[in-house]
Amino acid sequence: MSEFDYIRWLRQRTPPHPRVLVGPGDDCAVLRPSAAPLLVKTDMLLENCHFILEQAGPRRVGRKALAVNLSDIAAMGGRPVAAVVSVGLPRAKPPGESKPQGESSSAGGLAQELYLGMREIADEFDTALVGGATNSWDGGLVVSVALLGDAGPQGPILRSGAKPGDWLFVTGPLGGSILGKHLDFTPRVRAALELQEHVQIHAMLDISDGLAADVNHICEESGCGAVLVAERIPISPAARQMRDGRSPLELALGDGEDFELAFAVTPDDGRRLLDSQPIAGLTLSWVGECIAEQSLWLDDKNRRQALPPLGFVHP
Amino acid sequence: MSEFDYIRWLRQRTPPHPRVLVGPGDDCAVLRPSAAPLLVKTDMLLENCHFILEQAGPRRVGRKALAVNLSDIAAMGGRPVAAVVSVGLPRAKPPGESKPQGESSSAGGLAQELYLGMREIADEFDTALVGGATNSWDGGLVVSVALLGDAGPQGPILRSGAKPGDWLFVTGPLGGSILGKHLDFTPRVRAALELQEHVQIHAMLDISDGLAADVNHICEESGCGAVLVAERIPISPAARQMRDGRSPLELALGDGEDFELAFAVTPDDGRRLLDSQPIAGLTLSWVGECIAEQSLWLDDKNRRQALPPLGFVHP
Repeated sequence: MSEFDYIRWLRQRTPPHPRVLVGPGDDCAVLRPSAAPLLVKTDMLLENCHFILEQAGPRRVGRKALAVNLSDIAAMGGRPVAAVVSVGLPRAKPPGESKPQGESSSAGGLAQELYLGMREIADEFDTALVGGATNSWDGGLVVSVALLGDAGPQGPILRSGAKPGDWLFVTGPLGGSILGKHLDFTPRVRAALELQEHVQIHAMLDISDGLAADVNHICEESGCGAVLVAERIPISPAARQMRDGRSPLELALGDGEDFELAFAVTPDDGRRLLDSQPIAGLTLSWVGECIAEQSLWLDDKNRRQALPPLGFVHP
Repeated sequence: MSEFDYIRWLRQRTPPHPRVLVGPGDDCAVLRPSAAPLLVKTDMLLENCHFILEQAGPRRVGRKALAVNLSDIAAMGGRPVAAVVSVGLPRAKPPGESKPQGESSSAGGLAQELYLGMREIADEFDTALVGGATNSWDGGLVVSVALLGDAGPQGPILRSGAKPGDWLFVTGPLGGSILGKHLDFTPRVRAALELQEHVQIHAMLDISDGLAADVNHICEESGCGAVLVAERIPISPAARQMRDGRSPLELALGDGEDFELAFAVTPDDGRRLLDSQPIAGLTLSWVGECIAEQSLWLDDKNRRQALPPLGFVHP
């Protein structure tokens, strides 16, 4: 399938969207302007680094490529609007050279499968797919998405607004995402919008580097520190199944790609969240609080220890 | 250099920009909204497909990665505003393994050089670099840019507005871009904005696939055909230097990546452009006209022949 056939195929599958004036096929896509501040994010998935193509399958790779960006729009408290996608496709190898028999290895088929995975989650989050670029090369699969969004009702929620005394929350259990959640997670877009109806969010991000590392990001940007409380950190079933020599708590603190949100609110707002648990389908967990001293601590069985930002650092 | 050191380094080099509310370092960048329709474009450069890293050097690769997107904003008649950049870096190889001695192969150094190449052309076109993602992997260099722009005074100029009888122009000589112009071209952003002060542009695109293929894109989208006139097609000195078995005219018609603009205007507007040549530093060339019949022709020494859209089709 040529680039032009693929664009034709895409255009047939592109439903109208109220914000899209011009979709795929021209030199640029064109979006209707909005009065909200514009959120912009890009992230790139690389084969054998962020996914194993044979294990995940192309639809889940496409889904994840958009989902990681949706998670960042959620982390700002915003609404996703439209995405553009660049793909580098491994050139189809001659049959029998290195791919197992029976596997569809046509570049066109792979591009279509990626698109269908993206389409599924794009529809779920009312996000238009407005354009992109597709090229074949003698390398692994690369999928790069840039996503635009509108800031939500509280404006862009940054990492830098946490204050000493603020309570820290996470939107779900952590650790062991490598067993599957890193591909199949639900970006917390709706949760972040609903939260803004109930509390003023001082600072927020999504947990992509690991809870310790990401709380440390909030602290660095906000000029404060934090104490996390070991027994209050929600540990995922996956973290309890993992057998890699680290404890479930270490995994919950250190594993990346959970894509839950971590956020800071006043203690009053925090108490109301704990009492009401207002987000359907999610349990909000208090995990600690911000302190004035600019360092990171873990309270574990009433012993306070320094917590290195253990989180996964992209190599 | 870690991802976080690199982000710190970037933030130190990011000047304030009137449209940028939040630059690199948070979950998303945030732009001030505008009343103009928003142009969105992405393109990805892949090593050994769009550039040879050892020949081009990382700064020119960075420059090109942004420039190809600037060319698309130009093709819509718009003004570039801000870009996000995703990079896949080849993991630094142990010394002596496959890189020649003395070459800087540190991934951090490569990312910085790419950035400096982008910075140069970003400054030239008043474009903010607001965020991105950097990862290392066991593959070739990949640079993906997504660029946002505002539509210009005539609104987004599409490929679909050409009418039978319209005159077709190009902004510069064509062919042989592989000898250097594909890396060092100037995106025609200023020319496209200036043109809008003089004439109503019916349809426009940038010549990335080759003149014949790109005029064919205008024809397909506008529901018309075109006749190009061989002796009026401006042939670049590079096309005359090439020795690959094709004639300079074939190169000018078929080579991609010239990144000049092709556009359609009424004959009256066209005559005024030819008489006044209003764009400083550029010669606008009449190359043919649109016809009602939906096919593409070349008039060569008074012989009219069917012109296949010879242009470079990305493999």
